[in-house]
Amino acid sequence: MVDTMWNDQTTTMQTLKDSLQKFNADRDWEQFHTPKDLAMCVSAEAGELLECFLWKDESSDVDLDAVQEELADIMITAANLGARLNIDLMKAVERKLAVNAERYPVALARGRATKHTHLPKVVT
Amino acid sequence: MVDTMWNDQTTTMQTLKDSLQKFNADRDWEQFHTPKDLAMCVSAEAGELLECFLWKDESSDVDLDAVQEELADIMITAANLGARLNIDLMKAVERKLAVNAERYPVALARGRATKHTHLPKVVT
Amino acid sequence: MVDTMWNDQTTTMQTLKDSLQKFNADRDWEQFHTPKDLAMCVSAEAGELLECFLWKDESSDVDLDAVQEELADIMITAANLGARLNIDLMKAVERKLAVNAERYPVALARGRATKHTHLPKVVT
Amino acid sequence: MVDTMWNDQTTTMQTLKDSLQKFNADRDWEQFHTPKDLAMCVSAEAGELLECFLWKDESSDVDLDAVQEELADIMITAANLGARLNIDLMKAVERKLAVNAERYPVALARGRATKHTHLPKVVT
Repeated sequence: MVDTMWNDQTTTMQTLKDSLQKFNADRDWEQFHTPKDLAMCVSAEAGELLECFLWKDESSDVDLDAVQEELADIMITAANLGARLNIDLMKAVERKLAVNAERYPVALARGRATKHTHLPKVVT
Repeated sequence: MVDTMWNDQTTTMQTLKDSLQKFNADRDWEQFHTPKDLAMCVSAEAGELLECFLWKDESSDVDLDAVQEELADIMITAANLGARLNIDLMKAVERKLAVNAERYPVALARGRATKHTHLPKVVT
Repeated sequence: MVDTMWNDQTTTMQTLKDSLQKFNADRDWEQFHTPKDLAMCVSAEAGELLECFLWKDESSDVDLDAVQEELADIMITAANLGARLNIDLMKAVERKLAVNAERYPVALARGRATKHTHLPKVVT
Repeated sequence: MVDTMWNDQTTTMQTLKDSLQKFNADRDWEQFHTPKDLAMCVSAEAGELLECFLWKDESSDVDLDAVQEELADIMITAANLGARLNIDLMKAVERKLAVNAERYPVALARGRATKHTHLPKVVT
């Protein structure tokens, strides 16, 4: 376990992007990081995250360290892909939250796990 | 297109987590957000990201708006899962970067897209 | 390497389903094989298949043994899920091929890797 | 709903492979079907299968037609990848079942959803 200084309160995505930029340049890895391969990598890491919960029910012990590691891999790969395509991730997130707020109005979506395409058009 | 104020330079994961906490509470969605379902959701969103690059080569036009939206979905779902399990995502990322730095020493990993388990043990 | 007797020419999905039924019963695994977990397992195995191609271009050596193993895992898990939900997989495949033939008429789809929802409505 | 003649009792993977070979040739789609893209496609389809079970518990209604369609897509794409790489899928499956039987001996694996790498070495 290393001492950590980064945290969700103070560390920005840009700090992560900058850190990765150096990490990748040091290893000359930019040549492998095509957008397509980075998208594949996100999916492969998401598959490893899934495995942490496979065959488990609510009461089963989940390996939280493994979950943390897989979530970190997903964040790292998403940041690499964002950097590679000049996507500002937090800008994209804010935009998507606005879309979601419109797709899932409180009055219609409250207490319902229904995809927006299947939500009723009026409050029932 | 909405006006955006969030961005990778200044917005932290905590801001995203807080925003989602309210979004979910307003819709009474916490009941659906089990860690297992959130992990499944990350994977489903990663599948949609993959689709943006399917059957395309380097020269093909990729729909960047779609990529942005899928990346945003992945960030949002990762933040929901982190919040649900009390995982500090940036702390987890910093820890994983330290692990990666050890697994992929510059001298061994430079210019090689080889998984750490298959890297030579000495510089060749 | 074991001697094999099964092959694509003569072995049916039912033979696989029957074989798995016994394999799972011997291990008392039916209790874990909920449809949801089996769907997660398909996705996790698909992630491992992805990894076989990660960071590789056309000319890179792909580990064919690994690809075979992951494809086998996907077939096995799909058969388990089909059996669990009483789905006849080949019946489902035939039905989907008919749907695809309608969605992708030769005259419109020829030489195009375009999703059916984005195909032109008339031949161009 | 179309009349179906294929079924798990009598239809072999080779019948599916032959059918796809013609389907793809008619549309000149072989050019898009690189092994890497087909692996991505399996994963994207697996993500759609996941979505059928998202936010649902045992008692929730699952859309069985959607599950069937996604399972069919996975079988079709696996067959396309197998054909492209000259992999006999049922041969691969038989081989993997032998590996699994060795990895999960009844005496050790009975009633346990534990990955083989974490199974005890002796019966407990």
